[in-house]
Amino acid sequence: MRRSARGDVDPFIVMDVMERARAAEAAGRRIVHMEVGQPGTGAPKGARDAVAAAMEAGPLGYTVALGLPELRARIARLYAQWYGIDLDPARVIVTPGASGAFILAFTALFEAGEKVGLGLPGYPSYRQILRALSLQPVGLPTAPEARYQPVPDDVPPGLAGLILASPSNPSGTMLDRVALGALAERCRETGTALIADEIYHGIQYEGRAISALEVDPDAIIVNSFSKYFSMTGWRIGWLVVPEAEVRRYERLAQNLFICTTHASQVAALAAMDCTEELDRNVGVYAANRALLLEGLPKAGFTDFAPPDGAFYVYAGLDGISEDSLAFAGEVLDRAGVAVTPGLDFDPARGRRTLRFSYARSTADITEGLERLTEFMSRR
Amino acid sequence: MRRSARGDVDPFIVMDVMERARAAEAAGRRIVHMEVGQPGTGAPKGARDAVAAAMEAGPLGYTVALGLPELRARIARLYAQWYGIDLDPARVIVTPGASGAFILAFTALFEAGEKVGLGLPGYPSYRQILRALSLQPVGLPTAPEARYQPVPDDVPPGLAGLILASPSNPSGTMLDRVALGALAERCRETGTALIADEIYHGIQYEGRAISALEVDPDAIIVNSFSKYFSMTGWRIGWLVVPEAEVRRYERLAQNLFICTTHASQVAALAAMDCTEELDRNVGVYAANRALLLEGLPKAGFTDFAPPDGAFYVYAGLDGISEDSLAFAGEVLDRAGVAVTPGLDFDPARGRRTLRFSYARSTADITEGLERLTEFMSRR
Repeated sequence: MRRSARGDVDPFIVMDVMERARAAEAAGRRIVHMEVGQPGTGAPKGARDAVAAAMEAGPLGYTVALGLPELRARIARLYAQWYGIDLDPARVIVTPGASGAFILAFTALFEAGEKVGLGLPGYPSYRQILRALSLQPVGLPTAPEARYQPVPDDVPPGLAGLILASPSNPSGTMLDRVALGALAERCRETGTALIADEIYHGIQYEGRAISALEVDPDAIIVNSFSKYFSMTGWRIGWLVVPEAEVRRYERLAQNLFICTTHASQVAALAAMDCTEELDRNVGVYAANRALLLEGLPKAGFTDFAPPDGAFYVYAGLDGISEDSLAFAGEVLDRAGVAVTPGLDFDPARGRRTLRFSYARSTADITEGLERLTEFMSRR
Repeated sequence: MRRSARGDVDPFIVMDVMERARAAEAAGRRIVHMEVGQPGTGAPKGARDAVAAAMEAGPLGYTVALGLPELRARIARLYAQWYGIDLDPARVIVTPGASGAFILAFTALFEAGEKVGLGLPGYPSYRQILRALSLQPVGLPTAPEARYQPVPDDVPPGLAGLILASPSNPSGTMLDRVALGALAERCRETGTALIADEIYHGIQYEGRAISALEVDPDAIIVNSFSKYFSMTGWRIGWLVVPEAEVRRYERLAQNLFICTTHASQVAALAAMDCTEELDRNVGVYAANRALLLEGLPKAGFTDFAPPDGAFYVYAGLDGISEDSLAFAGEVLDRAGVAVTPGLDFDPARGRRTLRFSYARSTADITEGLERLTEFMSRR
């Protein structure tokens, strides 16, 4: 049986936690989920209604590869609304989730063997997608003092690409305009393509998120309908690429995907006008965040920076545990709370960190905090 | 701006035809579509109803990466129904279309630089996906006498993989059990992974399609809900892989896709019980096929083999034209019928071939034939 080395990617460590949580629930235990990276809410009502109507109006066949023209135009309009940017809809490419956007951008930009940098801690799939596409991920350890975001000096020469995430998963910290500008400048100096993961934009608590497009018109922007638009399972995202590159991306998308799920495109277009419902969701995250910022230190987790956006708190375990995987197992078994060990996000330093997600209901977060507090007091 | 060589894939030539057809329609002309590779019908009613209900029942969040367990079990049951094979559901992997299945299989099986063979004429995206993933497509010209399917002697040593398609796009011809078995045997001898594209199974006119799984338990099977199940725009397909490989594919799928669109999985599960509606669609294709088998020779297209399955006729143009692209343009302009030049399927010999699709309504095919007949008589 043939097996490629590039196909030997790492498993998600959190999956073991989730499987243990599932088994506990199957055995009748109540588990509070603070490990999941997705909203507890579904697609907004307007999106569901639009899909229901479209399904009966005619066949939802293939769309053109770049996506429905009206959806691309509506996404372009979001850049005016959110960032005050006048964006040509021709530069917007609808993709099968941010996942598909990464596959498309990585194959369009990089040859096999090239190096691509990414900050640690960071989203684990960056590394694995890169490896599957025969690229070399280069982890750049970021400092807690820099709020777990890279600074220009962290970026070595010789990288073909650099992936930034703001707000970041797992830390929730954002890069401001000055920090983003300095990183974009560093990339220009080193001939490094800048890929900005902006999938948590819209979920922010202290001022608005800055798009890399505001500081670098050549940046490759990755975004998604999964988080703010609450549509994880619909697998739809988008890219913004320089105008001169659109045709290359189009040819790749035609061949790699044919198109993004038609029903998901219909849902996404409608979701973009469901601001009231979506902002209510963000209100829930804000309330949950406030609970955690107050409650986690009382429980004994004092080592974290308040997140600017997304729905995670990334906390150090100094003085608590040197083995986040074992500790997460203990929290699950004894407190009935599922949390994510940091190892998925940072293979070395993640032994001493945990990620708490607050994407679920406020009742869940309240109960989770109570359980954590009691567990830590007994420990 | 960085640009990878592997990202420079070829455009679909048919897209130019489709764009010209669209422009003609926008200008008020009626065009008969015999170029499209998708059913004119949408997802069956049972599938649409299931999605409508599921959207209101709760959030359609991420599913597990391998797909909903009940869908994998139902697909496994299809192998009993269609082929009399007892298939373990654990070997079934739900994917974002056959497109996603190819990305997954190619990265799991092959290192950058390896060679993968495919018969010509064949589905053009095989070559482009391989190139985007840093693999070397090796086109194997097949003979009209072999009904445009490879035979063991066509397969050189040194291939890491071989892609077979039965029924084939564009020719619609199938490999029987003996032919498939001989090719599988040749692959075993040469250490070549066998990847069988079976996306047109269920649409067959002369006996049933044979799955590569019937002759080789280690074959990698690619299938899709796009054709028989009439769900192109839902972007859902599946893989069957050897049991020992499932975990590797799972890790790759987690990272490359997270999961296949949840709503599409719900639709697919329900579609599998809509046999009556789906078989009516096949009845339409069968009627259309009979019309073409009788009408195309009368119009002057005599050089083709009757298709065993799928919904295409692949016809030679000897004595008619030596430039299929120009000829397709002429047919569009003068007869108002969109057809596909063979160049997409066979870069060399495709100059002298055309593909007629009969996936649309019988009324459309009747009108298309009339127009073609009149056009050819005037020529």
